[in-house]
Amino acid sequence: MLSKNSIKFINALQKKKFRQKYNNFLVEGDKMVLEILTNHQFKIHSIYAVADWLDDNAPLLTRHRDKITAISERELKTISNLTTPNRVLCILEIPNAKLDDKRIAESLSLVLDNIQDPGNMGSILRTADWFGIEHVFCLQCVDVYNPKVVQATMGAFLRVRTIQTDAEAIFERWNELPVYGTFLNGTSIYESKLNSKGFIVIGNEGRGIRPEIEPFISHKIKIPAYGKAESLNAAVATGIVCATFKLGLVMS
Amino acid sequence: MLSKNSIKFINALQKKKFRQKYNNFLVEGDKMVLEILTNHQFKIHSIYAVADWLDDNAPLLTRHRDKITAISERELKTISNLTTPNRVLCILEIPNAKLDDKRIAESLSLVLDNIQDPGNMGSILRTADWFGIEHVFCLQCVDVYNPKVVQATMGAFLRVRTIQTDAEAIFERWNELPVYGTFLNGTSIYESKLNSKGFIVIGNEGRGIRPEIEPFISHKIKIPAYGKAESLNAAVATGIVCATFKLGLVMS
Repeated sequence: MLSKNSIKFINALQKKKFRQKYNNFLVEGDKMVLEILTNHQFKIHSIYAVADWLDDNAPLLTRHRDKITAISERELKTISNLTTPNRVLCILEIPNAKLDDKRIAESLSLVLDNIQDPGNMGSILRTADWFGIEHVFCLQCVDVYNPKVVQATMGAFLRVRTIQTDAEAIFERWNELPVYGTFLNGTSIYESKLNSKGFIVIGNEGRGIRPEIEPFISHKIKIPAYGKAESLNAAVATGIVCATFKLGLVMS
Repeated sequence: MLSKNSIKFINALQKKKFRQKYNNFLVEGDKMVLEILTNHQFKIHSIYAVADWLDDNAPLLTRHRDKITAISERELKTISNLTTPNRVLCILEIPNAKLDDKRIAESLSLVLDNIQDPGNMGSILRTADWFGIEHVFCLQCVDVYNPKVVQATMGAFLRVRTIQTDAEAIFERWNELPVYGTFLNGTSIYESKLNSKGFIVIGNEGRGIRPEIEPFISHKIKIPAYGKAESLNAAVATGIVCATFKLGLVMS
């Protein structure tokens, strides 16, 4: 049974203010919740699920028995964000991402500058995960724990570390690393010297990289265009740039 | 002044049924409407705009005077789909895309199999436009003239030809062309023989390419993964595949 207080609490987590106040966020659906149950890195606050899901996954749930509430399909609908609610909803603690200085100095990281669309943010984290990028720094972006972002990551938030920070904190701390950023007047990405470590800055959906971030960019790059479109979607551009860097792509 | 009948008509165009009935669709915002006014390929049914936009763009509007309705900001809000309505809304005729058989036989085209998300569809058309892909065939996809798709294309729908069709109609007509499709067990895209003409099939967001389409695929390809993500967003995957094909990318 779902209490009025639980409904109020879960609905409050739609808002960033309350996510920060309670240090909790929502994850929905069978697949991601099963991954959380076998991942162990995230602290589970509570699980709300329909009876048959609880039966199906009983062996995984023994450690969390005191955190589980069995609810009806109808109750799930009242707390779900999905058009087709998928059996289970879970509340997690927001992790305190520890920075692994050494790993950062030795690998490629993404820096997202003012990404605003939850779908884009989710797709970018999913893309980072695909290409094995471990750290994603967020400068004034949509909240990573926004339920729409979490769902769009398709589970990538469980593996990719996201850090809310400001530009100085990154680029002054790792000032020996190259900083790549996409600009319309940059050098073709396939003719640029790409490094296996450093930062790739992805700009805002409409305005690109902000002028105050530009001075930190050491390498201006661009994805060559063949048609007449003025720009690419931010997540699509991230995918092309990440593939190029991680795979060392060159034009034949 | 906006009449009740106009409001009813414009709101009806949210639905595919009425777009097909009237053969019209909606486009919003200063940038795209200006492009339409200078592009001349699309037939304008009507334009609804605030007075200052009409003043600013008077020279472009002389040919369309009988199609223009001046409306207030408040009226625009009642017919707009945007959270921040942007001065002008335009109704266009759905074009009857003519197939250029010769161009298709000589170039790369996309085939979208059951793409359902309007944002993805818009991003994919924008990506096609960026890479100069002229023809996009849609098999059981979200309607290209859905207002959310149109807005997400950022104007690409003005340049990329979209054709609603079925698999047989394409693959039997151009049966000498290679047909590429992404599969988890495909050959790395960077080790595949890529052709400068043919079809690239992009599958559904959750289920990939449908089993009934698989027999038409002559080359199974994949984007190599570095991390643990199970898949990429459909638009991101399209971007990586299109870049690889158009630029002839190989691993260094």
